[in-house]
Amino acid sequence: MYRSHNCGELNASNINTEVTLAGWVQKSRDKGFMNWVDLRDRYGITQLIFDEVRTDKTVFELAKTLGREFVIQVKGTVIEREAKNKNIPTGDIEILVTELTILNAALTPPFTIEDETDGGEDIRMKYRYLDIRRNPVKNSLLFRHKVAMEVRKYLSDLDFCEVETPYLIKSTPEGARDFVVPSRMNEGQFYALPQSPQTFKQLLMVGGMDKYFQIVKCFRDEDLRADRQPEFTQIDCEMAFVEQEDILNVFEGLTRHLLKEIKGVEVAKFPRITYDYAMKTYGNDKPDIRFGMEFGELNEFAQHKDFPVFNAAELVVGIAVPGAGNYTRKEIDALIDWVKRPQVGASGMVYAKCNDDGTYKSSVDKFYDQDDLGQWAKITGAKPGDMIFVLSGPANKTRAQLSALRMELATRLGLRKPEEFAPLWVVDFPLLELDEESGRYHAMHHPFTSPKPEDMQLLETEPGKVRANAYDMVLNGNEIGGGSIRIHDKATQQLMFKYLGFTEEEAKAQFGFLMDAFQFGAPPHGGLAFGLDRLVAILGGQETIRDFIAFPKNNSGRDVMIDAPATIDDAQLKELHIKVDLV
Amino acid sequence: MYRSHNCGELNASNINTEVTLAGWVQKSRDKGFMNWVDLRDRYGITQLIFDEVRTDKTVFELAKTLGREFVIQVKGTVIEREAKNKNIPTGDIEILVTELTILNAALTPPFTIEDETDGGEDIRMKYRYLDIRRNPVKNSLLFRHKVAMEVRKYLSDLDFCEVETPYLIKSTPEGARDFVVPSRMNEGQFYALPQSPQTFKQLLMVGGMDKYFQIVKCFRDEDLRADRQPEFTQIDCEMAFVEQEDILNVFEGLTRHLLKEIKGVEVAKFPRITYDYAMKTYGNDKPDIRFGMEFGELNEFAQHKDFPVFNAAELVVGIAVPGAGNYTRKEIDALIDWVKRPQVGASGMVYAKCNDDGTYKSSVDKFYDQDDLGQWAKITGAKPGDMIFVLSGPANKTRAQLSALRMELATRLGLRKPEEFAPLWVVDFPLLELDEESGRYHAMHHPFTSPKPEDMQLLETEPGKVRANAYDMVLNGNEIGGGSIRIHDKATQQLMFKYLGFTEEEAKAQFGFLMDAFQFGAPPHGGLAFGLDRLVAILGGQETIRDFIAFPKNNSGRDVMIDAPATIDDAQLKELHIKVDLV
Repeated sequence: MYRSHNCGELNASNINTEVTLAGWVQKSRDKGFMNWVDLRDRYGITQLIFDEVRTDKTVFELAKTLGREFVIQVKGTVIEREAKNKNIPTGDIEILVTELTILNAALTPPFTIEDETDGGEDIRMKYRYLDIRRNPVKNSLLFRHKVAMEVRKYLSDLDFCEVETPYLIKSTPEGARDFVVPSRMNEGQFYALPQSPQTFKQLLMVGGMDKYFQIVKCFRDEDLRADRQPEFTQIDCEMAFVEQEDILNVFEGLTRHLLKEIKGVEVAKFPRITYDYAMKTYGNDKPDIRFGMEFGELNEFAQHKDFPVFNAAELVVGIAVPGAGNYTRKEIDALIDWVKRPQVGASGMVYAKCNDDGTYKSSVDKFYDQDDLGQWAKITGAKPGDMIFVLSGPANKTRAQLSALRMELATRLGLRKPEEFAPLWVVDFPLLELDEESGRYHAMHHPFTSPKPEDMQLLETEPGKVRANAYDMVLNGNEIGGGSIRIHDKATQQLMFKYLGFTEEEAKAQFGFLMDAFQFGAPPHGGLAFGLDRLVAILGGQETIRDFIAFPKNNSGRDVMIDAPATIDDAQLKELHIKVDLV
Repeated sequence: MYRSHNCGELNASNINTEVTLAGWVQKSRDKGFMNWVDLRDRYGITQLIFDEVRTDKTVFELAKTLGREFVIQVKGTVIEREAKNKNIPTGDIEILVTELTILNAALTPPFTIEDETDGGEDIRMKYRYLDIRRNPVKNSLLFRHKVAMEVRKYLSDLDFCEVETPYLIKSTPEGARDFVVPSRMNEGQFYALPQSPQTFKQLLMVGGMDKYFQIVKCFRDEDLRADRQPEFTQIDCEMAFVEQEDILNVFEGLTRHLLKEIKGVEVAKFPRITYDYAMKTYGNDKPDIRFGMEFGELNEFAQHKDFPVFNAAELVVGIAVPGAGNYTRKEIDALIDWVKRPQVGASGMVYAKCNDDGTYKSSVDKFYDQDDLGQWAKITGAKPGDMIFVLSGPANKTRAQLSALRMELATRLGLRKPEEFAPLWVVDFPLLELDEESGRYHAMHHPFTSPKPEDMQLLETEPGKVRANAYDMVLNGNEIGGGSIRIHDKATQQLMFKYLGFTEEEAKAQFGFLMDAFQFGAPPHGGLAFGLDRLVAILGGQETIRDFIAFPKNNSGRDVMIDAPATIDDAQLKELHIKVDLV
C-alpha cells in the first residue's frame, strides 16, 4: 500500500502521527524558504509543508520541482497548521514532509483541475480522465453509484430479483433504430443490441420470476439530440399478478425512499393526473408542478366579442404569471418575440395586466371590457400584480406553445428550484398515437401495452380514443419513468399487431416466441422502466446528464477520447461476411 | 393485486383465514368427489381442495377442467390438512376453495415442469421461459442475484464505486475477436463491444476514482467451447496506489465473505503458490486442491536403470492414487486407454501397486526393484493400498496429461465434493507466452500487465522467463478471477507494445489515448476481474454455468428461443453503409 491514510481524513486528533500519503499535486506555493503543496486524492486535500529549516535539503529541493498533477508519495508528521482553513476537514493540520517520492511526473494538463475549470466541453471530453479528477464530475459518479445501490437494496428487500437479460438479441423494425452486430458464426445474420429488455422481462414473468428488476444498458441508434446518448441505462422492472395500482405503489415507494435517503427530502403521496388533464392543464404530459401557472381555457369569455383572432381559434388559453404585472412594454414585446420564434411557433400573444387596484389593462382592451378580463383572471387564477398571457389557435399546438412559455417564465422567475422535488404520476395514456406523416397509428408506449378493457370496443372506430393502462412518473418536468400493464394473452396481442399494421407473418416472425409463450400459461403482469441517467441528474439537481456518465459520447455518437467508432481491418470484415458500402 | 398471500407462506397459524392466491396448476388429483390441485408460484406450492359437499357446484366443475400450467386465481379458507406433508412449509394446511378464476389457460408444456424434467437440452432452451419455472433454474437465478448483491454490498462498504463504462468502444486486434457494430452516423466506421472494460478502468484510476468496480457484460466472438458464452459477466475491479498484496487481500476478503454469507463456509487464509510450483505440482495453473495427488518428479529414481522409455524422457512424473492399490488389471487397462485417447495424448502409462504389506508390484518390475519403487512411493507420497501412476515424455505435455488423469481420478473417486471449497492464489505468472504457431510472444494476461521490476532486464534475452505481477484466484479447479499490477508509465508501456510486435504507429492508433493518459499523472494501479457466471456456478455446487444464465446461447452462438441472430432488411443495411458479403 502506498499510503497509511487518504488525503481527506487527517485532523487535529492525528497530530504527531507519522503518516504516508499519496496523491496528486493540486498546487504549490513556493515562498523560497518554505513551500506548501496541496496533495489531492479522491477523498480530499491535505496540505504538505517543506521548509528550509526542518526539511532535509534533498527533499526540500525535490519539492521545488513538483508540477501540477504530479503523482507523489510523502512520509511525514502531522502537525498543527498556523493558519487554519475552516473550509476543509483537514484544515487544522498539515504534514511536515520527511520523504518525498515522485511516483509519476505529469505534463501540464490542458485545463485546470478545479471545480470551475477553464476547459471547454470538447477538450474536457477528449481528456475525460482529467475531467473526472474534478469534483463536479467525480462527485456525480459517486452520487450515481449511491443512487444505484439504494435502488438495488430497496428492490431486493422487496424480493425483486435482478436478472441479466441478453445483449445480443434480434432486430425488430418496431420502435427506434437498432444497433446491429454481424454474426461471424451465422453468415449473413445479425444480432441487435436491445433498446430495452422488454420481451425478456415479460418472458421472465411467464417463467414465474414474479418480481424482476435490472439496472441495464440499452441502445438506440437515433440522431442524437442534445443530452441524449446512444447507450443509456435503465432501471427496468416487471411484476406478475399485479394491477396498475400495485406497480404505482411500489415505484412511488422506491422514489420516495431515494428522495429521503439520498436527498433527505420527505414527499407526500404523489398526485395522480390523467394524460388528458395534464395536456389541458399544462400543455404537456410531463408537467413541472413545482409551481402553478395552470392553464385557463378562455373560449367562453373570449369568443363572445368581435376579436376575429380569438373567434377563429379552436382554443383560447391563458396563464397567470405571478408578480409579472409590472413587466414593461419592452419586456412584454421580448416575450412576444420569444413565443413567435420558430421553435415555439405562436403567431402572436395577448396580455392582460392585473393592476393592484383590481382593474385590468390588456392589449385587447378594444374588444374586451373589465368584466371579460375579470373572468380571464378568475379562470387563470390571476391576482392583482400578476400578468395574464393568452395564446390561441389549434388546440394541440397552442397548448404546446403555452407550455413552452410557462416553462420559460418559470425558469426566468426562479421557480424551477433544483433542490425542490415535485413528483407525480400521469396515467391513462392513449394506447395509440397518430403519425401525421404516414397517417397510421403507432403504439404510444409499445405494442405490448394493454388497452383498458372498457375501451377495447373503440379500437375499430376511434383508435385514438382508446386509453391504455399506461403511466409515467414525472419529476420536476422530466419523465423519469414509464410503464404499463401488458397484454398477456395471445388473442389480444395478435389483435394489437394487426391494428399496428403487422401482417400475420411479420408478427409471427418477429414476436412469435412471445405469442407462443402467452399460450403456455402467462400470468397478468406489468412493469415500468426508469431512465437512470436522467433520474440521477435530477436528484443531483442538474439539468444535463453528461456529468453523471463516466465516458459519454458526443452528439455524433463519437467517443472523442478513444476516437471511436473507427475503421476496422478488411480481414475482420471478411470474417463477418460483410463489406463496407459507401455511397 | 391478484393475491393476498403467495404460495409459499401459509401454515397452521393461518388456519381459518380467508385468502386469495394466484399461480400455476402444478398438478391435480381428481378423485371424483374430491379434487386436489397443487398451486405453484415462485415462492412455493399450496394445496387447494375442491369437494363435492363443501364446494359450490360451478366452482367444483370448473376445477375439473384445469390443466397443467393453467394460471388461476382462487379465494378460499385456510384449513388444516388431514394428511400432512412434512416436506414443504405449507404442508400442514390446504385451501378450501370458494371462488376460482382461470386467468389464462395453457397448452400442455412440451416437457414436465418438475425438478427432474423429461425435457432434453434443446427443447428446454427453445422454451426457456418454461424451463425457468423449474426449481433448479429458478433457484439458480435467485442465487445469482444473491451473490451479485453481496459482492456489491461488500465492495461498496469498502468505498469501491461502481462506474458504468461504455459498451460501444473501439476494436483492437489484440486478444480475442471483437464483436463489432457498424455506425450509421459515422460512415464506414465500427464500434466494438468490450471484451473487458480494461482500458476504461485504468483511465478511471488516472482520473482519481481510486477504487472502482463494475458487474458488467463482456463479449468475445470466439468459437464456442462447451460452457462458454459469447456474452458473459465479469466482476471487474481496479485500485490505485496499491501493490499486489493489497489487491489479493481485498479480493480474498470478498471471496471469504461470499463463502461465509452465501454458503456458511469458513475458510482459512488462502494458500499462495507460484505459477511454476502449480505447474510442477499439479500440471495445471488452476489446480483443484480439495484433494492431494500432488505430482512426484521421478527422474532421479527412474532414469538410472535400463528402461529406455523413461531414460529418453524429459520428465518422469507420477501420482499416488489413494486406495487404488486394489484396481484390477482390467480397470488399470481402461485407465491406460483413457490417457491414450487423443484428448489426453499419452503414449502409455506405468503403474506400481503399493501392497498392504509394504511391497510393490509394478508394470516395470523387470527394470525397477523394490528400493526404486519405494523411492517412487516416498516421492509421490503413496501409502500401502495406494496405486502410483507414472507418465513420461516432454515436460509440459506430460504434466498436462498427468493433470488430466489426476482430475479424472478425483472425479471417479468422489474427491471433487461440490460443497467443499478450496480457494487459492496462483501468483508470479509469466509475462509472455510463446505462440507455437507464429513463434512470437504474446501477453499471457494482456499488454497492460506490469513485468516484475527485477525481471525487466530479461525482456531482451529470455522473454519467456520474465515474470509478471499477475495472479489468478482459483477455486475448486477453476480460475474464477485474475488480474495484475498494471504498467502506469508511458515508457514501459511503449516498450511492452514493442516487444509484442506493435509498430509505433499501431500502438499509437490503438492505445494512444492510454499512453497519453499515462503522461498526465497516472498513479500506480492494479486490479482483477472475476468471472461471475463461473463463480456463481461453483458456489452453487455446479459444474456448468448455463443454469445460472437466464437466457443462454447455444454452441453456435444462437438464442434458439427468439431465433437470433437473424437476417435484417436491406434498408437497414443500407443505412449502416454495409453489404452482406457471402462467399
